[in-house]
Amino acid sequence: MPEKIALGRYVFERLNQLGVNTVFGLPGDFNLALLDHIDEVDGVRWAGNANELNASYAADGYARVKGLSCLITTFGVGELSAANGIAGSYAEHVPVIHIVGVPTVKATKGKLLLHHTLGDGRFDVYKKMFAQITEKAVTIDDITTAPHVFDEMFRTAYVTKRPVYIALPSNFIEEKVPADLLEDKIDLTLGPNDPQAEEEAVEEIMKMTVAAKNPIILVDACALRNEVQDLVAQLADETQFPIFATPMGKSGISEDHPRFGGVYVGVLSKPDVKEAVESADLVLSIGGLLSDYNTGSFSYEYSTKNVVEFHSGYTKIKSAIYNDVKMQWILEKLIESLPNVLGDYTPVDLPASPQAYKSLVVEPSEPITQSFLWNRVSTFFKPTDIAVSETGTSAFGIIQAHFPGQVIGISQVLFGSIGYATGAAAGASFAASELNPNRRVILFTGEGSFQLTTQSVSDCLQQYSTMELL
Amino acid sequence: MPEKIALGRYVFERLNQLGVNTVFGLPGDFNLALLDHIDEVDGVRWAGNANELNASYAADGYARVKGLSCLITTFGVGELSAANGIAGSYAEHVPVIHIVGVPTVKATKGKLLLHHTLGDGRFDVYKKMFAQITEKAVTIDDITTAPHVFDEMFRTAYVTKRPVYIALPSNFIEEKVPADLLEDKIDLTLGPNDPQAEEEAVEEIMKMTVAAKNPIILVDACALRNEVQDLVAQLADETQFPIFATPMGKSGISEDHPRFGGVYVGVLSKPDVKEAVESADLVLSIGGLLSDYNTGSFSYEYSTKNVVEFHSGYTKIKSAIYNDVKMQWILEKLIESLPNVLGDYTPVDLPASPQAYKSLVVEPSEPITQSFLWNRVSTFFKPTDIAVSETGTSAFGIIQAHFPGQVIGISQVLFGSIGYATGAAAGASFAASELNPNRRVILFTGEGSFQLTTQSVSDCLQQYSTMELL
Ligand SMILES: Cc1ncc(C[n+]2csc(CCOP(=O)(O)OP(=O)(O)O)c2C)c(N)n1
Ligand SMILES: Cc1ncc(C[n+]2csc(CCOP(=O)(O)OP(=O)(O)O)c2C)c(N)n1
Repeated sequence: MPEKIALGRYVFERLNQLGVNTVFGLPGDFNLALLDHIDEVDGVRWAGNANELNASYAADGYARVKGLSCLITTFGVGELSAANGIAGSYAEHVPVIHIVGVPTVKATKGKLLLHHTLGDGRFDVYKKMFAQITEKAVTIDDITTAPHVFDEMFRTAYVTKRPVYIALPSNFIEEKVPADLLEDKIDLTLGPNDPQAEEEAVEEIMKMTVAAKNPIILVDACALRNEVQDLVAQLADETQFPIFATPMGKSGISEDHPRFGGVYVGVLSKPDVKEAVESADLVLSIGGLLSDYNTGSFSYEYSTKNVVEFHSGYTKIKSAIYNDVKMQWILEKLIESLPNVLGDYTPVDLPASPQAYKSLVVEPSEPITQSFLWNRVSTFFKPTDIAVSETGTSAFGIIQAHFPGQVIGISQVLFGSIGYATGAAAGASFAASELNPNRRVILFTGEGSFQLTTQSVSDCLQQYSTMELL
Repeated sequence: MPEKIALGRYVFERLNQLGVNTVFGLPGDFNLALLDHIDEVDGVRWAGNANELNASYAADGYARVKGLSCLITTFGVGELSAANGIAGSYAEHVPVIHIVGVPTVKATKGKLLLHHTLGDGRFDVYKKMFAQITEKAVTIDDITTAPHVFDEMFRTAYVTKRPVYIALPSNFIEEKVPADLLEDKIDLTLGPNDPQAEEEAVEEIMKMTVAAKNPIILVDACALRNEVQDLVAQLADETQFPIFATPMGKSGISEDHPRFGGVYVGVLSKPDVKEAVESADLVLSIGGLLSDYNTGSFSYEYSTKNVVEFHSGYTKIKSAIYNDVKMQWILEKLIESLPNVLGDYTPVDLPASPQAYKSLVVEPSEPITQSFLWNRVSTFFKPTDIAVSETGTSAFGIIQAHFPGQVIGISQVLFGSIGYATGAAAGASFAASELNPNRRVILFTGEGSFQLTTQSVSDCLQQYSTMELL
């Protein structure tokens, strides 16, 4: 690598280091020069989507599989079409880096009546809009600080699990930056917990565990986003507590895990699952996100007040909030400590095993029911599949299906924008192919929803021709 | 009509009065109850689009033909998908009324973790975003003032020629309002000009006209938006000045008008058009919008400083701005006054007539050129056609085509969002069918652009089945 490289190349070298190997988006004259640098970086490819909304959904789907993603659009017309997708990523805690090619600093200062502007000289409007639906929105304004700003924004997206917005004026793209900056990798590690608060919280949880006869674990959306699935499984292994998932937490624990008890959705749960969860005398809730669709319209009815919530930035025990006690580190501590106080605990029975799916046969004269369909689908899944379901019938239906092995479920349960699933499936298919070329992505959607983003099918197909070329 | 009607019905009764006979958008649970009221109003139909971006483009296309339009979306997921379309309407001065069904006042106050929210209790984010790209954004918060607020917002859109945003909490939809409010029609008339300023401006323009040997008229975007085409034609009739159009002003004057000289786009103009415009010693510019694509990248080179600009809110003579001298009224005054001071003026010759199109024949061995294509298209147009062209090759090409009779041209020359043309054509087709069932809408787009909003084709088809039903 030369001593100095263009900022454009720097961006993709960094993304490559972060495991972002596919970039989504559309070209436009303010980002064209940037896109030209993709080819300089082995390991990064351009997806090239059919429109920006679909591209933003694809970036979201990719990030849910690989932990981070990048979307590139052009000033105004491109970025605004992606607003709904980015807002969805914000709501659902998905880290998408949105880079927007914008006019040069000179054109902006001169308030030129350029295409893609609102015609009134306000060049900062789009950024202001995105500031509302991202963790942070910045404009690159100085080549000397630009690499640092990109690094910081990439880190912010990863650590906060939220989208970020970076406006890149086109005059900076070819400017040179020192290549050796790339030698220091971006630090993605989380800061440690507040030791005092963590110690108090662990002690409190140990006490509650000793007293409990019937504790359960409930895994939810943010356990997936914070990629603590392994810790969740270890906690279940070590404690033998029954473990349940919410709709958004589905695939936070392997459904083949011997202590997996089913999906809890308040009143919409299977009766024995509802009974098992609500009769618990201690609930360890990991990454909870209590939106209406995720909770059966707010119908949780725990009989206990002993609820511990583990979040990305804090832990809450009953009403007490322990700031800066992040789930990552406290779960590790609990996996070590809890087994020491489980002397009296006898593992309770699980609800009727949700794994016991059999291939149902339907007589031609019988109607095909939802329950038949989702049971049948359960036998069709392979352990590495990615199952994407759409708001509406399929997102509700998939709750009943059994995910074997490491199946990843993707659904926009909180934000609920229809059309999302098709776009996200396209993005997930790029991610899947990078992890394992045999990995399947299976899309469940409604014919109404499919209309909105049907072009995403061509985005996937294009991937296969790209893969041929690789 | 009963004495009291639901607010939902009130909205559509008003739209009907304003000539908005088709409503664009998509259903969602926060606007469903509102949409149910469409059927109560004879003369208003629901378009039902395949997605919200396409719906917003359709609403824009409809408004460009009929002067006003309405788009209805649902909270968050629906409205945000329309952001790019609404921003385009703002940039291009197109009056679109955007009504968004939002959660009830109670849910909003309770900051419930509802679907379609960002999950953080901020219910006002979407409105804040739209405030940036609309003339005005409001939330209905009181049933007693609601009819008045709707009336005011409808008026604002019409008068300012910009989109407006109205968030309607779903609890208000069925609440009753007095039906007799509908008897007072919404006042859409423009206030009068400042009489003193107008008199001074008219006098100044008369002086300049007396001194000029070679005055021209240049018609641009905002002449179309302010629907002063008749005044423009009268001004050309009365003065016999050559009249030219910009790309965005194309169809601001019939191209069959005997004094129509061609399309002026700075350096991209035909040489004789460029010469004719730039050698003028007085330019009467009506509704000018000097964006890069509209001016051949800012390449206007008038040899004179004698430029008069007529705008919707002011008139500018050389450097002097006359506030509150609106084009509508001052053009009327000039049509009366100017003929009196034209004693010495001999109408100059026009550039080679752009009407002189003939059906060119191309030998099978010869390549089909752009210039052949657009000449050939000129002979294909019928006088009532609506020609929609897309950013890129077709928007540049159509400049060369001759529009016979009352052909309306639609193109998003300033904002330049690709995919717009297909969506706008769908919307225009609804408008066209309301004006004259034989009116044709002809779409020119690129295969790249067509990808973005290809579903809009199905939106048109649906119209035809609706029309069968009418
Ligand atoms: C972008 C967006 N627009 C509108 C809605 C409101 N909405 C929710 S479900 C739905 C209909 C979906 O139809 P289909 O996919 O056929 O539903 P299914 O029969 O699978 O439940 C609509 C319009 C939404 N959630 N998102
Ligand atoms: C929404 C949006 N995204 C991206 C762009 C940037 N852009 C301008 S033209 C173009 C390609 C259009 O392709 P096509 O329609 O085939 O162009 P043509 O050959 O007709 O000129 C793109 C991506 C844009 N103007 N709008």
